[in-house]
Amino acid sequence: MADIDALARLLRAELGSGQVITDRAELRTYECDGLAHYKVVPALVVLPHTAEQVAAVVRACVAAGVPFVARGSGTGLSGGALPHADGVLIVTAQMRRIVEIAPADERAVVEPGVINLQVTKAATPHGYYYAPDPSSQQICSIGGNVAENSGGAHCLKYGFTTNHVTGLQIVAPDGELLRLGGRALDPPGYDLIGAFVGSEGTLGIATEVTVKLTRLPETVRTLLAAFPSIDQAGAATSAIIGAGVVPAAIEMMDALAIEAAEAAVACGYPAGAAAVLIVELDGPSAEVEAQFEQVTALCEKNGAFEIRIAADDLERALFWKGRKSAFAAVGRISPDYIVQDGVIPRTALPEVLRRISEVANEHGVRVANVFHAGDGNLHPLVLFDDGIEGEAERAETVSGAIIDLCIEYGGSITGEHGVGMDKAKYMPRMFGDDDLDTMQLVRCAFDPLMLSNPGKIFPTPRLCGERPGRGAESPFPGVEIF
Amino acid sequence: MADIDALARLLRAELGSGQVITDRAELRTYECDGLAHYKVVPALVVLPHTAEQVAAVVRACVAAGVPFVARGSGTGLSGGALPHADGVLIVTAQMRRIVEIAPADERAVVEPGVINLQVTKAATPHGYYYAPDPSSQQICSIGGNVAENSGGAHCLKYGFTTNHVTGLQIVAPDGELLRLGGRALDPPGYDLIGAFVGSEGTLGIATEVTVKLTRLPETVRTLLAAFPSIDQAGAATSAIIGAGVVPAAIEMMDALAIEAAEAAVACGYPAGAAAVLIVELDGPSAEVEAQFEQVTALCEKNGAFEIRIAADDLERALFWKGRKSAFAAVGRISPDYIVQDGVIPRTALPEVLRRISEVANEHGVRVANVFHAGDGNLHPLVLFDDGIEGEAERAETVSGAIIDLCIEYGGSITGEHGVGMDKAKYMPRMFGDDDLDTMQLVRCAFDPLMLSNPGKIFPTPRLCGERPGRGAESPFPGVEIF
Repeated sequence: MADIDALARLLRAELGSGQVITDRAELRTYECDGLAHYKVVPALVVLPHTAEQVAAVVRACVAAGVPFVARGSGTGLSGGALPHADGVLIVTAQMRRIVEIAPADERAVVEPGVINLQVTKAATPHGYYYAPDPSSQQICSIGGNVAENSGGAHCLKYGFTTNHVTGLQIVAPDGELLRLGGRALDPPGYDLIGAFVGSEGTLGIATEVTVKLTRLPETVRTLLAAFPSIDQAGAATSAIIGAGVVPAAIEMMDALAIEAAEAAVACGYPAGAAAVLIVELDGPSAEVEAQFEQVTALCEKNGAFEIRIAADDLERALFWKGRKSAFAAVGRISPDYIVQDGVIPRTALPEVLRRISEVANEHGVRVANVFHAGDGNLHPLVLFDDGIEGEAERAETVSGAIIDLCIEYGGSITGEHGVGMDKAKYMPRMFGDDDLDTMQLVRCAFDPLMLSNPGKIFPTPRLCGERPGRGAESPFPGVEIF
Repeated sequence: MADIDALARLLRAELGSGQVITDRAELRTYECDGLAHYKVVPALVVLPHTAEQVAAVVRACVAAGVPFVARGSGTGLSGGALPHADGVLIVTAQMRRIVEIAPADERAVVEPGVINLQVTKAATPHGYYYAPDPSSQQICSIGGNVAENSGGAHCLKYGFTTNHVTGLQIVAPDGELLRLGGRALDPPGYDLIGAFVGSEGTLGIATEVTVKLTRLPETVRTLLAAFPSIDQAGAATSAIIGAGVVPAAIEMMDALAIEAAEAAVACGYPAGAAAVLIVELDGPSAEVEAQFEQVTALCEKNGAFEIRIAADDLERALFWKGRKSAFAAVGRISPDYIVQDGVIPRTALPEVLRRISEVANEHGVRVANVFHAGDGNLHPLVLFDDGIEGEAERAETVSGAIIDLCIEYGGSITGEHGVGMDKAKYMPRMFGDDDLDTMQLVRCAFDPLMLSNPGKIFPTPRLCGERPGRGAESPFPGVEIF
């Protein structure tokens, strides 16, 4: 094992002693991210202030053969920022400078520790905002959003983080500072920004991010529709999208999720609903008004028994309050829960929800469903009580079975939370050996020593010199992949 | 040099003799793509029918150490499909099957030889179309579009090819068939689709492409505005975008381009215009009508002396006829011309156009400007007469100076035609050594033998085992990048 004490001395000299943490109690603060299921205390934590300091830390790690993991606000839900026990955790929380708001270019340039919502706050006076809005947007960092390709309720219309990043400064896994892209879209050469966003720290660390700013919409209209069954709410969702309307958001909650939200924040949703949809439209007034009538009619046609239209921002906020508090609210009706994140084709919603319910019943576990219905991004909350023996295991089984269902229906093992540590085991269920080998080739191109966030995304990492499996049956013997 | 005759025999046995061309006169048909400036006769041409046949050809090339180049319809404008004199040209023209039109998923699955416009034709009965529309859309292939990340007039609103491809089957440069992505957006793992689209054949050959289908708009409205100066047309463009309107297209033509178009197709644009703008809006009627009024007012405010609104599809087609024929029309006013393709920030349009005009005057060369004004994608046509000694060289100098201007103003050396053979020399003006080294690392991960379309994109290819330049000053000696 490398000499961590020597590394700590070196980094203290380089960064200043206040920016290097070695005290065991303090280190423990960083033992997990938002997925508290996994806990690892890092060997060392550093808090760099500049990109050059991040580069210096990475170079020192490479020289010492020590793995390193970057962490923003630590709100991730897949263990992507889980520390390495023998490694350095590079926390970007002190890199919070908004470098530039450039409304004429519709761009903002920020450091990775900048909080998601702060970008919007800085852009709003200019008539712009930053569109990707994870539920954690009041606390999550742009650097973490880049690593995990974070989504949010409004990604149905506006796309994920990857659709909003046009430029990056990164520290590559060898410690070099590189620039990828810039302010323009689609520069020549390979699109390495696309590959980097969502690479969960395995291709390096973002130290500056250039993002698109989106014009504030002229109008926002929000409705809440209550349905007597989940099938009808699902059919309404398909009908809305099928009509060519792309709402800013279509969110669904089932009866159990509604119950939890009511218990927590008394949001006053219509009584007796098996499912509610929150549909939000934004854009030019003329467009929004016309489409709003269309959406209302489609909800009615598909059996909505009550439709409420937000009269003002206050009522709109109330509609969203129930939805946004749903995860935390589940604590009111269950001591423990797992938040799952999977994707299915929108058209399969009713069928998959039925099968989730069957699996849950089979194992005697309750599942509350809260999700981005418009893009088929499920967030089932699997409830359990850790105090009752065997419940945690049963919940884990149901949670895994839900992911299997997502794959079976042609969906994905993650919609917006990332693979991280938690879902690496599912990757071979979704990707074949050739697919994983190709990703591994790219990983090794950036990180041949496998020091940059090792153990995340890939289930069974090979060393980079090893011959990929597919080479074994190479039709042209003598030709090595490397 | 490898034994091409032996390779031809092997491929004839594998594919059938009708699919392998060795006759010198026939080979000459394939000596260039749309950029006829460069000509190279390939050693061998193959016309595979299936992905498996493409894979077999690539494996045979790898075994023989022979380079290979893929070609769709050969309409590219950067020499991206220029053959290799000692290599095999893999022509996908016989892979023209539309595998599936899936309107419920908003996806189409096609073979690479399928013509761009055929996708739209197949999707239209279902209420959908394929959005990226290069000027060559009646003849260019989807495979070529993927290789070059092709654009088109309507990419301002709808994005480039890279924004419309969600899945690929490719033959990797080692001959393996791989699948990248699928029907869903943003799957877990690295976004290799993003890296592949626009990689101009250097990361392999696409053998099946899954693209997004876009809902046909409810309404399309088109106007033509004539301005007394280019500055005013540029200012109107900035004002439209600045108002938060995103038209489907904003195209600009200057006086010389208008003159050429009139001479060729008598499109009847307003007389005496220093510049015309064609602005097209599409979407829900309610939105389009409201925004159309806004656009008209902004054109007037910025000095338009005549505004014509297309009354029907026929008049709309007439507006576009002048624009779409402009490139070919230039033949009426000049024996020869170079089509340049560069990008500048939209706000710099008037200034850069003035400087292009200065450079042209300085060298006694005429430049006609036709371009996608909305996204700052210039297409200057540099006119010359090859019969007059020195004119071709002067035109080439002006063409290169325009690219320098694009870089100086923070733009790009290509907007939608790609780097290919033609612009490889400009890459070091736009990218630093570190940037190019990083792209090279990815290239080598896919194509360590450098057989897949060698000589394109990168100006001075290193062998894949060579240590990148930046390693020379590595702060941690002893650590090799490979």
